[in-house]
Amino acid sequence: MPSETTLPFTFNIVPSLESILDKYDNHIARNLSAMKGQYQDRAAYEAKLTEDDPVLYEVYEVSRPPVAGELLMGISIVRPGKVGNEYYMTKGHFHTVLETSEMYYCLRGAGFMVMETPEGDWAVEALKPGTVLYVPPRWAHRSVNTGDQENLVTFFTYPGNAGHDYGTIERQGFRKIVMDHQGNPEIADNPRWMPADVRR
Amino acid sequence: MPSETTLPFTFNIVPSLESILDKYDNHIARNLSAMKGQYQDRAAYEAKLTEDDPVLYEVYEVSRPPVAGELLMGISIVRPGKVGNEYYMTKGHFHTVLETSEMYYCLRGAGFMVMETPEGDWAVEALKPGTVLYVPPRWAHRSVNTGDQENLVTFFTYPGNAGHDYGTIERQGFRKIVMDHQGNPEIADNPRWMPADVRR
Repeated sequence: MPSETTLPFTFNIVPSLESILDKYDNHIARNLSAMKGQYQDRAAYEAKLTEDDPVLYEVYEVSRPPVAGELLMGISIVRPGKVGNEYYMTKGHFHTVLETSEMYYCLRGAGFMVMETPEGDWAVEALKPGTVLYVPPRWAHRSVNTGDQENLVTFFTYPGNAGHDYGTIERQGFRKIVMDHQGNPEIADNPRWMPADVRR
Repeated sequence: MPSETTLPFTFNIVPSLESILDKYDNHIARNLSAMKGQYQDRAAYEAKLTEDDPVLYEVYEVSRPPVAGELLMGISIVRPGKVGNEYYMTKGHFHTVLETSEMYYCLRGAGFMVMETPEGDWAVEALKPGTVLYVPPRWAHRSVNTGDQENLVTFFTYPGNAGHDYGTIERQGFRKIVMDHQGNPEIADNPRWMPADVRR
């Protein structure tokens, strides 16, 4: 018989308010304190952090061997909320193996995926329940919850060898940011962002 | 700007009875006549075919470049019905690049995924709405609709370089078959199946 890692298996997306999995072996919870430098309104960030360190998002993942041909799968849950006028969002990352893609299927909530390439191209796509988003190879990606009260819940799949490169985004964020403008989400330029050739 | 192929994009799984996509560029419909030799009850197959040549299943797919790192995505819809006591099912296939996997997310209906490796290992997993099935590298896979009236609808994702090898399964089918036994699905041995070393 093959080893357990090589056997087919199933799990279920539990139809609850949280939409979590009934099987996972990797759970990540990112608090506000893990997002240092990512929000434009530094004063609002610091003020909020002195009061509390809330969880902004969670990831539940089913692990697989980190090789091409395998697929990693999981659920991402971004909480509703803002730092200043900027919505709660994930750290965002490139894949370490840049030529790997990712599929997102939105299950609940409303928001955006903010994306960019190393060459400075950018894209922002809306997410709502039933939307499938394809993030092609080379595109860094960050999900943003623009809902007032509901979690943004997505199911994702990506190649087992992809890996995560957080450092590039941590240094200056994404080219575009998503702000609450009089109750509506607005896509704006990130004033801290610089083209790669200026950065070097 | 990057070429259109390299841009992120979204599409929607339409919440209708059919669960189809609002964007696709590859549509496959397989009729009964395309399943010659796959059903155990040859007389029932031939008799049915003289009356009609119904569509047994359809696939709607979003194409991507056929390379590792890309992901293909789509919807599979298997109709309800039987040939003799054997349920409607897909042709089933290995991936041409054997070391590639596939993810299925069941949206509607009820059924099974029948799977096997080139070494003769087999697995059968139940599908119901909310179930995610992981087909690891090396496992051939066929979906079977065991519902009385409802379509079996799954959303799938697999690596862009996987490819389809139908020939191996066409020759003798899967090791296991799913039959209606007094109104309930039953997993049975395929009498036509032989181990690979006997076949050679």
